[in-house]
Amino acid sequence: MRMKRNIGIGLMGLGVVGGGVARVVLEKNRTLAEEIGCPLALKKVLVRDRGKPRPVLVDSHLLSLDPQEILADSEIDIVIEVIGGEHPALEYTKEALLRGKHVVTANKEVIAKHGAELLKMAQERGVSILYEASVGGGIPLLLPLHHGLLANEITTMYAIINGTTNYILTRMSNEGVSFDVALKKAQELGYAEPDAANDIEGKDAAYKLAILATVAFHTVVQPEDIYCQGISRLCKQDFRYAKELGYEIKLLAIAKQGDGSIEVRVHPAFIPVEFLLAKVDGVYNAVQIDGDLVGTLIFYGRGAGAQPTASAIIADVIATGRVICSEGKGSVRPRPPQRMPIRPVSELETRYYLRMGIADRPGVLAQIARVLGDHSISIASVIQKEADEVTQTAEIVIMTHPAREQFMQQSVSEMEGLSVVKEICNLIRVEE
Amino acid sequence: MRMKRNIGIGLMGLGVVGGGVARVVLEKNRTLAEEIGCPLALKKVLVRDRGKPRPVLVDSHLLSLDPQEILADSEIDIVIEVIGGEHPALEYTKEALLRGKHVVTANKEVIAKHGAELLKMAQERGVSILYEASVGGGIPLLLPLHHGLLANEITTMYAIINGTTNYILTRMSNEGVSFDVALKKAQELGYAEPDAANDIEGKDAAYKLAILATVAFHTVVQPEDIYCQGISRLCKQDFRYAKELGYEIKLLAIAKQGDGSIEVRVHPAFIPVEFLLAKVDGVYNAVQIDGDLVGTLIFYGRGAGAQPTASAIIADVIATGRVICSEGKGSVRPRPPQRMPIRPVSELETRYYLRMGIADRPGVLAQIARVLGDHSISIASVIQKEADEVTQTAEIVIMTHPAREQFMQQSVSEMEGLSVVKEICNLIRVEE
Repeated sequence: MRMKRNIGIGLMGLGVVGGGVARVVLEKNRTLAEEIGCPLALKKVLVRDRGKPRPVLVDSHLLSLDPQEILADSEIDIVIEVIGGEHPALEYTKEALLRGKHVVTANKEVIAKHGAELLKMAQERGVSILYEASVGGGIPLLLPLHHGLLANEITTMYAIINGTTNYILTRMSNEGVSFDVALKKAQELGYAEPDAANDIEGKDAAYKLAILATVAFHTVVQPEDIYCQGISRLCKQDFRYAKELGYEIKLLAIAKQGDGSIEVRVHPAFIPVEFLLAKVDGVYNAVQIDGDLVGTLIFYGRGAGAQPTASAIIADVIATGRVICSEGKGSVRPRPPQRMPIRPVSELETRYYLRMGIADRPGVLAQIARVLGDHSISIASVIQKEADEVTQTAEIVIMTHPAREQFMQQSVSEMEGLSVVKEICNLIRVEE
Repeated sequence: MRMKRNIGIGLMGLGVVGGGVARVVLEKNRTLAEEIGCPLALKKVLVRDRGKPRPVLVDSHLLSLDPQEILADSEIDIVIEVIGGEHPALEYTKEALLRGKHVVTANKEVIAKHGAELLKMAQERGVSILYEASVGGGIPLLLPLHHGLLANEITTMYAIINGTTNYILTRMSNEGVSFDVALKKAQELGYAEPDAANDIEGKDAAYKLAILATVAFHTVVQPEDIYCQGISRLCKQDFRYAKELGYEIKLLAIAKQGDGSIEVRVHPAFIPVEFLLAKVDGVYNAVQIDGDLVGTLIFYGRGAGAQPTASAIIADVIATGRVICSEGKGSVRPRPPQRMPIRPVSELETRYYLRMGIADRPGVLAQIARVLGDHSISIASVIQKEADEVTQTAEIVIMTHPAREQFMQQSVSEMEGLSVVKEICNLIRVEE
């Protein structure tokens, strides 16, 4: 049995996400080959228009208008489907599986509606269909549910999984604007489609919740099983009252399991401001998962975009590629690592908070500032408190602009030598 | 070639974590067997004292004082090491690998100091050593780094990975108490050891950071490479100033990569209050990971405890077991799911926020309250705003106690029929 020379990739779709995937496959080919065990070869890319100018440098002879050039090509091992929408993506996916090709897809609608059937087809043909990118963009969600949390019974999921609506709600909450104004802003910035109904009405979130709940609960949850209510009825006053009462308003996708049944719903919900989910702002996504052993987990990150989605797709391609490359002998063994130089802390550049006790007399701050200035450290702000009359000592706090650790430490040493400095109380780095 | 009948487990250590692992292996055996493909058999448990009363019902004939009874037993396929500490855990782990046994370990000290050597030994013997539980308790961290984020170059990690110090800092920040008072409280509650030096001085966090950075950066980071500063010098004033300036103080474990080198450090740091990491309170852990494709991700959860740690250990056992069970043929294919009944939203029980416009005259609230009362819904609070004199309409907001969705919807319908109710403006569910 000879080793595979490479793994043939057929890419269906070269839009925003497809372009991101093509770029990673081309630009990171060497790293990916190391991870997989053999290189990926981009064999064919299905497009709707060959002549369209594209930002990614895909050789024009790889472009094709005919899906059969991918589906019927025996050199293609993995089909990546990033066309989106139910049809014809579903038909292409089925045909790829039937022809014994592995599939990696970002298509939430196809998986939410037909996932169980597709998994069954894949199992029968001895191939895999992976779909991490279909929910939560680049956030690893299905991976932990399929692997890392298997010892758990998942009881509850609360998810903010639609960036468009979360952006709108964040603006309504922070700026007190109306739904229409926030929606218009989202559309101007490209966070919402011209026809945003699927997002606004919670349908997109429902597709994703169907996928998450199906995996988490080992059951089939279809989009039509999900109670779904959108955000278009929310108005300014709701946000005012929410604040008054200590809540934020978020569009939550909720799945719970208990007593042999589950509940699945998507709707706007108040959540206490002190909850971490209440702080998930803008286009970010977050999924809170409760398991009987692990307790509460939260996964947070970008739920959309070319690069995050490509990150998830390529992870699935690597997982599939490893199995292909090892002739079915998968392995969970991490590679022994290499050695890289360690950068010493002295080379750190950051802002600092410095608190010290000083003599309460004129000219002291000037002396301190001179020491810092001598080491090219500039002061961002100073707080000086009333002096203690008995000890004639005052306390000051200095916030610096970014400075090098080495110079900061030297400054502190010099300051300790100044007669006007009674004590260096604390030096703390600022991370922001 | 015959199928394996079961997978033999040798458990080294039956303390808090070991007890949790034993309980899961015994109580969830059927589920685990389904996930793995064959059942786990707990063959032997290494303890220091056979007579000690234990909360877990492990058959006393499984207990052993002699490590060789596990290491030399050819029926044991996986050794789970939960003794902790460097010696003799390191020696046991090495011997297990040399004898061709797979190892799953929660031992941060052994992995941080000797991980590279142990991975190499495992590779040479064709076995695996997995250690998800060594960092972040039950939070899947090494799994995404080893699998889900492989397409990324990880640039930065900020981690709150020591629950003891985070608990102390949270109390100092929220209650303005001194370090000593907060430490004492942590010790009383069992969140800190009587000798808490390893936690307080950042050593525990440094072990974990060494493990995370080694995996994320594909390099070897040793504990002694890490700049390390503890929290014992922080005092009340620091927290007062931090608040005044808009910051929280956290013990951060930080790793960055760039220009062919890395930086690794553990120290207290100011972080802006609006950062999600600033809201990670108490014994919880959180790790923020930045990748070139995926952007910012945060993983949040319980960083310690018997059950969360068991969750991570069992996940590693399942991954190892799947490889053993399939004679080395691993698979990334999720199982086709089963069907479970869907609970309708009408059966939901939750609190509600109800806003409506009502006629501004006496007795209206009584009518509304009666409708709710008729449906067994009790009112938690009411806000009533000044009436609009022209329209003679007032606005009220009602927060309910937990109520059933079906009854809430019926109440709303009935209220809509009341002449005194001008408009039902909004009904929003409260999740808390």
